[in-house]
Amino acid sequence: MINVGIVGSTGRVGSLLIDDLAVDNEAKLSACHVFDTLTKSVPENTVVTNDMKVLVDTCDVVIDFSAPVATQSLLEEIVENGGTKPLVIATTGFNKHQQNLLLEASKKVPVLYATNMSLGVAVLNKLVSLASKALRDFDCEIVEQHHRYKVDSPSGTALTLAEHAARARDLDLDAVRVSGRDGEIGARTKDEIGVMSLRGGDIVGRHTVGLYNDGEFIELHHTATARNTFSKGAIRAAKWLVNQEPGLYSINDCLGL
Amino acid sequence: MINVGIVGSTGRVGSLLIDDLAVDNEAKLSACHVFDTLTKSVPENTVVTNDMKVLVDTCDVVIDFSAPVATQSLLEEIVENGGTKPLVIATTGFNKHQQNLLLEASKKVPVLYATNMSLGVAVLNKLVSLASKALRDFDCEIVEQHHRYKVDSPSGTALTLAEHAARARDLDLDAVRVSGRDGEIGARTKDEIGVMSLRGGDIVGRHTVGLYNDGEFIELHHTATARNTFSKGAIRAAKWLVNQEPGLYSINDCLGL
Amino acid sequence: MINVGIVGSTGRVGSLLIDDLAVDNEAKLSACHVFDTLTKSVPENTVVTNDMKVLVDTCDVVIDFSAPVATQSLLEEIVENGGTKPLVIATTGFNKHQQNLLLEASKKVPVLYATNMSLGVAVLNKLVSLASKALRDFDCEIVEQHHRYKVDSPSGTALTLAEHAARARDLDLDAVRVSGRDGEIGARTKDEIGVMSLRGGDIVGRHTVGLYNDGEFIELHHTATARNTFSKGAIRAAKWLVNQEPGLYSINDCLGL
Amino acid sequence: MINVGIVGSTGRVGSLLIDDLAVDNEAKLSACHVFDTLTKSVPENTVVTNDMKVLVDTCDVVIDFSAPVATQSLLEEIVENGGTKPLVIATTGFNKHQQNLLLEASKKVPVLYATNMSLGVAVLNKLVSLASKALRDFDCEIVEQHHRYKVDSPSGTALTLAEHAARARDLDLDAVRVSGRDGEIGARTKDEIGVMSLRGGDIVGRHTVGLYNDGEFIELHHTATARNTFSKGAIRAAKWLVNQEPGLYSINDCLGL
Repeated sequence: MINVGIVGSTGRVGSLLIDDLAVDNEAKLSACHVFDTLTKSVPENTVVTNDMKVLVDTCDVVIDFSAPVATQSLLEEIVENGGTKPLVIATTGFNKHQQNLLLEASKKVPVLYATNMSLGVAVLNKLVSLASKALRDFDCEIVEQHHRYKVDSPSGTALTLAEHAARARDLDLDAVRVSGRDGEIGARTKDEIGVMSLRGGDIVGRHTVGLYNDGEFIELHHTATARNTFSKGAIRAAKWLVNQEPGLYSINDCLGL
Repeated sequence: MINVGIVGSTGRVGSLLIDDLAVDNEAKLSACHVFDTLTKSVPENTVVTNDMKVLVDTCDVVIDFSAPVATQSLLEEIVENGGTKPLVIATTGFNKHQQNLLLEASKKVPVLYATNMSLGVAVLNKLVSLASKALRDFDCEIVEQHHRYKVDSPSGTALTLAEHAARARDLDLDAVRVSGRDGEIGARTKDEIGVMSLRGGDIVGRHTVGLYNDGEFIELHHTATARNTFSKGAIRAAKWLVNQEPGLYSINDCLGL
Repeated sequence: MINVGIVGSTGRVGSLLIDDLAVDNEAKLSACHVFDTLTKSVPENTVVTNDMKVLVDTCDVVIDFSAPVATQSLLEEIVENGGTKPLVIATTGFNKHQQNLLLEASKKVPVLYATNMSLGVAVLNKLVSLASKALRDFDCEIVEQHHRYKVDSPSGTALTLAEHAARARDLDLDAVRVSGRDGEIGARTKDEIGVMSLRGGDIVGRHTVGLYNDGEFIELHHTATARNTFSKGAIRAAKWLVNQEPGLYSINDCLGL
Repeated sequence: MINVGIVGSTGRVGSLLIDDLAVDNEAKLSACHVFDTLTKSVPENTVVTNDMKVLVDTCDVVIDFSAPVATQSLLEEIVENGGTKPLVIATTGFNKHQQNLLLEASKKVPVLYATNMSLGVAVLNKLVSLASKALRDFDCEIVEQHHRYKVDSPSGTALTLAEHAARARDLDLDAVRVSGRDGEIGARTKDEIGVMSLRGGDIVGRHTVGLYNDGEFIELHHTATARNTFSKGAIRAAKWLVNQEPGLYSINDCLGL
C-alpha cells in the first residue's frame, strides 16, 4: 500500500484526491498539508500538518495540486532540507525561481510535472501529433464543448490539442486558428485550423479533433464523464513514480508514450 | 410505371434525376425539357423538347429543378393552356407573379413545392421543432459541416434548422444566433443558439442539432452521403403526388408528418 | 414554493430527490415517508413519517419512487381515505389490483405515471416514432452503451426505443430484433432492427437510433450525463402536475408532446 | 509527371485508378495491363497491353490491384527478366511461392505491399495500438458500419483494428472478441473486446474504436466517404515509392509512422 501525502488538500482537486484515495486498492492517504485547517473529514490516523517536513516524512509520494507558494515550500524541503520522496506536481503559474527549484528537485528525486493529469487527454495529444503529421493533406477542425457556465473559449485543452496539430505541420497556431465562420467568407484555406466552442448543459468536457480529406476522414474524440479525471490521473502517476529513478518526467512517460 | 418529365434536365440535379430514374423500379424518364440541346444521353424513346406543352403531354408527373423563367413557362402551361399533370417543383427565386402562378396552378393540379427535397432533412426539421419546444430549458447548439470548397457559412440547411429551433421557443433567430466563441466572453446566455460551421475534405453535408441540460442531452443528426439526395427525394415525392387531389403540398405532406 | 412529499425516500432515486430539492428554486422537500428510519440528513422541519396520511397532508404533491407495496398504501390513502394531492409515480411491477387502484386514484387527483422519468428519453421515444414512420424505407439500427457493471443487455430504454421504431412500421419487435452479427450471414433484411449493446467505463447511459438510406441517414441520440436525470424529471413533472385536473397523465403530457 | 502502369485495370479499383489519375496533377496513366480487352476508355497514347514486359517498360511505377496469377507474372518480370520499376501491390491471397517472389522482387526494386491502401485506416491502426497500450485499464469496444448489402460481419478492417487493440495488450483476439450481447449475461469482463456490426443504407465504411474508463473515454473514428479511398491511397504511395531504395515497405512507411 502506497502512502500518499497531499499538498493542496483544501482545493477542489485535493478534495477529490481524498475521496478517490479512500476507495483505492493500492494507495491510501497518509498526510495532508494545510496552511490553516482542513474542514473535510479524513481517515483516522491521517497526519494533518502545516509543516512540509512532517508531510514529506509521513508519506511514500507527494501529490501537489496547490499554488506556487506552497509548491515552492515543498520543493525547498527536497532541495535544501534533504527530503527524498517522489513528487507528482500539477500546480501552474511558477516564476523563474520556482521553475529552477523544480529542476533542482528532479536531480534528487523523481518529479512528474503535468498541468493536465488526464490520461486520456495526454494520449489524445500524442495521437493528434502523429495523425496531423502523417495526414498532412487532411483539413484539421476541432470542436470542444463544456457546460453553460464556462466563461472562456476555446478551452485550454482545445488550444493545446490545436497546438499539437499545428506544430506537427510546422504551422503557427496563432496564424491559422479560426474560431467562427459567418457569411460569404470563401473556400477554406489549406492550413487553417477551426477551433469551435459549444456550450450547454452540464458537459464536463468533450473534445474532437477531425482530419478531413477527399474520400475519408478521421475523428479523434475525448469525453470527460466526471470531475475527478485529474485526481485519478495523479494517483496513477504517483503509483508509477515511486518506482522511478530521480529525473523530470511527464504524464507521457508514465503512460509509456 | 410512372412516366416522369423533367424541367431543368441540363442542370446538376436534372442530370442526377436522369441517372436515378434509369434504375428506378416504379418510375422512368419519359420526357426532358431543354432550351437548347441535351448533351447527356437518355434512354431510347425519351422525348427531348423545347415545347412545354409536349413535355406535359408526354408524362404522368413533372419534376422541375430549373430557373424561375422555365418554371413560369411550365406553370403557364397548366394555368392557361389546360395542362393537367401533377408538378414537383424545387426551383427557387420566384417573383410575385411567379408565386401567384404557383398558387393558381395548385388549384387545378397537385403541386408539391419544396426548396430542399431531402426526406431526412424534412424529418429533422420537424423533430427539431418538437424537441426544442418540449425541452424548452435545454441549451441549443447546432454544428454543420461541408466540404472545403463551400464559400458561405452557415449552410442554408443549418439556418433553417436553427429557425425551427428558435420559432419553437418564440425566439428571433437573428437576435440569438452565435457563429463563433473566442476569448473571455462570459457564461452562455439562456436563449443563444450557437450555429458553428466546420469545413473540410469532401463532406457532402452533416448537420447536428444538440439540446443540452443538467443531467442529459439530445443530439439530432443528419448526414448526406451522396449528392443525389435531392433527386431521390423528388422522385419519391413524384410517386406520392400522382395520387393526390389538386392543392399545394410540402415535402412534409408527402412524408405524412 | 411547492412542497414535495417523497415516498421511497430511502432508495437511490429518493436520495437524489432530497439532494435536488435542496437546490431547487420552485420546489422544496416537506415530508418523507419511511417504513423504518431515514439515515440521510434532511432539512430542518421536514416531516419524516411512516404514516401515509401524514405524508399526504404535509405536502402539495407526492413523488413516489418506491415499491408496489408502498405505492399501494399511497393509492389507498387517496382512494379510500380522501387524500387529495397530485401523485407522480415511477414505481414498477404493479399487480392487477394495484393497477386498478392507480386508475381509481386518477379519477380523484391528477396522477402522472411513468417508468422512465427522463425528459430527454421521453422526447426521443416520440421522435423515433415519427421518424421511423415517415422514413419507412430507411434501415433502423440502435446502439446503446452503459457502464461495465451492467448485467443485462440490451437496456430497457433501448428496447423501448426499438418498440417505438417497430410499432411505427407495424412490425413485431421480437420477430425483427437482432442483437449481434458474426460470420457470413448475408445481406441485411429490410425489416430487421439491430439493437447492439456496448459496455465500458462509467457510462451512465447513451442511446442512438439510426435510420439509414441510400444517400442520407439520420441519427437520434440521447446521453445521460448524471445519475439524477430521473429525479430531475420527476421534479419537473411534479411542478406541472400541481396545475392539472384529475386524470391519468404520462411524461409526454407534461412535455406537451 | 510520374507515369503509372496499372495491373488489374479491368477491376473495380483499377477503374477508379484510371479516373483518379485523369485528374491528378503529379501522376498520369501511361499503361494498362489486360488479359483480354479494356472496355473503359483511357487517355490517348495510353499503352494497353497483355505483355507484362511492355507494361513495366512504359511506366515509372506499377500499381497492382489484381489477382495472384497476374501479380505473379508481374513479379517474375522483375525477378527473372530484369524489370526495374517500383511496385505498389494491393493484391491478396498469395501462395507460398508468390510470397517468396514478392520478397525476391523487393531486393531488386522498392515494393510497397498493403492489403488496405486507405491512409486513414493505416493511421487509425497505429493510433489504436498506441492508445490501447497506454490506456491498458480502459475497456475497449469497436463499432463498424457498412451498407445494407455487405454479407460478412465484422468487416475485415474492424477485425484488423481489433487485432491491433488486442496485441497491444498481449491478448488473443479470438479469446476475447464478443460480437453481440443479449440477456442476463453479467458484467463486462476486463479483457473482452466488443466488435459490433451495424448495417444500413449506402454507408461506404465507418469504424469507431472506443476506450472507456471511470471518468473519461476516448473514441477513435474513421469514415470512408467515397469508394475511391483505396485508389487515392495507392497513388499517394506510388508517388512516394519512386524515390525509395529497393526494399519491402508498408503503407506506414509511406506515411512516416
